[in-house]
Amino acid sequence: MSEYNDPLDQAHELSMSAADLDANSIAALRLAIARKDHDSIRILMDGEHPADIADMFEQLSGDARETLIKLTADVLIPSVLAELEDEVVEDVLSLLGPKQISEAVAELDSDDATQLIEELHVHRRAEVMAALPDRHREEVEASFAFDHETAGRLMQREFVAAPEFWTVGQAIDHMRAQGEKGGDALPDLFFDLYIIDTHFRPLGYLPLSGLIRCGRDVSLKSVMQTIPALIAPDMDQEDVAYLFEKYDLISAPVVDVDGRLSGMITVDDMVEVIQEENKEDMLALAGVSEAGLTDTALTTVRARAPWLLVNLVTAVCASFVISLFRDEITELVALAILMPIVASLGGNTGIQALTVAIRALVTRDLTQANTWRVIRREALAALMNGVLFAVLLAGITYIWFKDPYLSVVIGVALIFNFVCAGLAGILVPLGLKKAGADPAVASSVFVTTVSDVIGFFAFLGLASVFLL
Amino acid sequence: MSEYNDPLDQAHELSMSAADLDANSIAALRLAIARKDHDSIRILMDGEHPADIADMFEQLSGDARETLIKLTADVLIPSVLAELEDEVVEDVLSLLGPKQISEAVAELDSDDATQLIEELHVHRRAEVMAALPDRHREEVEASFAFDHETAGRLMQREFVAAPEFWTVGQAIDHMRAQGEKGGDALPDLFFDLYIIDTHFRPLGYLPLSGLIRCGRDVSLKSVMQTIPALIAPDMDQEDVAYLFEKYDLISAPVVDVDGRLSGMITVDDMVEVIQEENKEDMLALAGVSEAGLTDTALTTVRARAPWLLVNLVTAVCASFVISLFRDEITELVALAILMPIVASLGGNTGIQALTVAIRALVTRDLTQANTWRVIRREALAALMNGVLFAVLLAGITYIWFKDPYLSVVIGVALIFNFVCAGLAGILVPLGLKKAGADPAVASSVFVTTVSDVIGFFAFLGLASVFLL
Repeated sequence: MSEYNDPLDQAHELSMSAADLDANSIAALRLAIARKDHDSIRILMDGEHPADIADMFEQLSGDARETLIKLTADVLIPSVLAELEDEVVEDVLSLLGPKQISEAVAELDSDDATQLIEELHVHRRAEVMAALPDRHREEVEASFAFDHETAGRLMQREFVAAPEFWTVGQAIDHMRAQGEKGGDALPDLFFDLYIIDTHFRPLGYLPLSGLIRCGRDVSLKSVMQTIPALIAPDMDQEDVAYLFEKYDLISAPVVDVDGRLSGMITVDDMVEVIQEENKEDMLALAGVSEAGLTDTALTTVRARAPWLLVNLVTAVCASFVISLFRDEITELVALAILMPIVASLGGNTGIQALTVAIRALVTRDLTQANTWRVIRREALAALMNGVLFAVLLAGITYIWFKDPYLSVVIGVALIFNFVCAGLAGILVPLGLKKAGADPAVASSVFVTTVSDVIGFFAFLGLASVFLL
Repeated sequence: MSEYNDPLDQAHELSMSAADLDANSIAALRLAIARKDHDSIRILMDGEHPADIADMFEQLSGDARETLIKLTADVLIPSVLAELEDEVVEDVLSLLGPKQISEAVAELDSDDATQLIEELHVHRRAEVMAALPDRHREEVEASFAFDHETAGRLMQREFVAAPEFWTVGQAIDHMRAQGEKGGDALPDLFFDLYIIDTHFRPLGYLPLSGLIRCGRDVSLKSVMQTIPALIAPDMDQEDVAYLFEKYDLISAPVVDVDGRLSGMITVDDMVEVIQEENKEDMLALAGVSEAGLTDTALTTVRARAPWLLVNLVTAVCASFVISLFRDEITELVALAILMPIVASLGGNTGIQALTVAIRALVTRDLTQANTWRVIRREALAALMNGVLFAVLLAGITYIWFKDPYLSVVIGVALIFNFVCAGLAGILVPLGLKKAGADPAVASSVFVTTVSDVIGFFAFLGLASVFLL
């Protein structure tokens, strides 16, 4: 056996490629594209997994992608298109003809087909849809009847079901017969057999591994398991992902308004949703509306300027608070030197509480049943940290300015600001959620505004009353 | 068919329970526990999915959990223990005897068993291990030979493999025979059949749905698929999760140092890892070392105080910069009023760039091949946003203070701060990664320190040179 075929070498190689896409092969691909060198391009892409080809594509500049598609359009097999990131697929589709797109759509499972068509501009959608075989067009149209980011959009219409009165042997024979027919009779990949009544309503399910372990004469009804989660097609994708995570689901049945089995959602799509929702939350907390690495500087500016504008407004408000105390600052410049510490520490306390709260809302650990307990805990923790840091900061202030009154004032202001910021950190996301908004969006701006305004006001206000 | 059994009602009910665990049933359970009312407890928990029982448990206070376990220890069936969150399982295990724990461990698949034993305190581990049947003890010991958070710890030692010369029919018959034996012969749940050579080295795989769709006489060799990712047991769990996400894997084989198949990792565990890593990144960005909703105020303080302490140090540094310009501030109090705006906007710009960079590192979109392009883009975007907001802020300053020179100074300081903060936002996480550290930990403190110090220094410094 040659070195190359040693599975462990392969494992290590894969572990390397996992850690970092090979920069050399991307550089080689760029060169080959620039030279319009067909043979080298083929060698670099041949036999690669569709996901790896998609990754290579994503690393290229827009121009290089265009040249590559013109040179070797056939590398864009349907499964590569399905693996591309949304922002890239949009560019790539604009380089392909409607015929090539419809052929790809017809070959994919209906969930991947729908996702592809979602990325097309509206006027091109009609062209592609017109070129689709009737059955596929109907399926895609049915998916588009549901809102973006719902179960109805994500589900595939291909699934495998069997009546409750069948035996394990009958079910296996049926699937084998369907499979041997070839084509679209079975989904490309499936994990569970759904057991249905005569009205096509799901009664239970059996994982394929459960099917295979049973004797052929066993009735499906006797071994089927309770379905932990039936999905309604209008369910938000985030709720669906939560059910998958909670019940360790591999696939779940989607039922229509009459309770009939109408589709299936699989875990690979949910992994994508989980990553997408996590990304959204993290970016929303930082005030970024969208981020892709293929973005130009201009789109980056557009994604970030709106929140900076909101931040400008809130910062001006905080400055206005400071301006109320301009005489005090002129008289005691130590106030200007120390005031950012109170605001900064308070801001951090608020962001800590906020991030924990948003995380807990995402994982559904923060519920009606424990809201009050969590609020009390946050207030108490903020108070305790407030006292701790008030002592430290008062000490630093005394050493620096040798003014015991200033030290007490800054300590008291800090405690007050910690409690307000900590409460804002938990109450703002809860309030946004109650109002039906995304708790991650805009909440960090709220929280830092609270801690800035209160921090400056408490410190300068107390100083003006007790020091001057 | 009664209303209650209508599947759509069920779907809606589930969608409700997904959105929020029923506060009423938790309240009822609390009351039943307080009253030591066995019957009500049984009614509330009977027939619930293990994941739901685990959720209920997590919502209870420590005392209520203890009482519940004393009253009805048998609700803690092994699958419920496997579903509990780490922090809760630790408490719960301390209430159970070593015999009950070993029985649970013996019943679980080896990956869940290892996870459970990980949560035991070291001195209790030995007790539980001693009470385990030999085969299970050996399996758990073998898992513990690998580091925490590696593939070796996560894998289960139960999997299904077949030699390459078998037919589909032989493989199915073998699995059925194993399954009918009952017990531990087959994993509880599996999705792929691994095809091996005579040295037990994996050659390919076949999803069960691929097996079922083929005729019985088809040889496994002719239909097996290439394994997209072989996992080495020392691979970090984050890398494993990345491979699952990239290749849409449902299970993946783990090979030992000699390339022999030694275990299997399944997607449900990877969903957990993905959520855990996302949580860690988000909390690290906010400077929280750990967060659980069962935490007391004291543990919350402990998890957050260290980063506040770091923040105190950096805030004092920024204040020291201000103190260098105390004469200038006394002379022109507008400087004290306006300086927090420059620092705050710069800080936000830095955090935006930082969050995008960390996200891109997590999803492996930021690689060696595009690092320079991304750095250039961040610098350019920061410059463009800097100019935009410099104009706005200069305008506000002019309207407020009617001082054209002050307006120019604050604008120039802002542009400078934006570029520095934007660059810090991308370079700090890249540097931490290069140094082998977690790019999310500590990076936001670095970035805001840069923007505070540079913001104050640039604004006050320019003012002292050009205004006074």
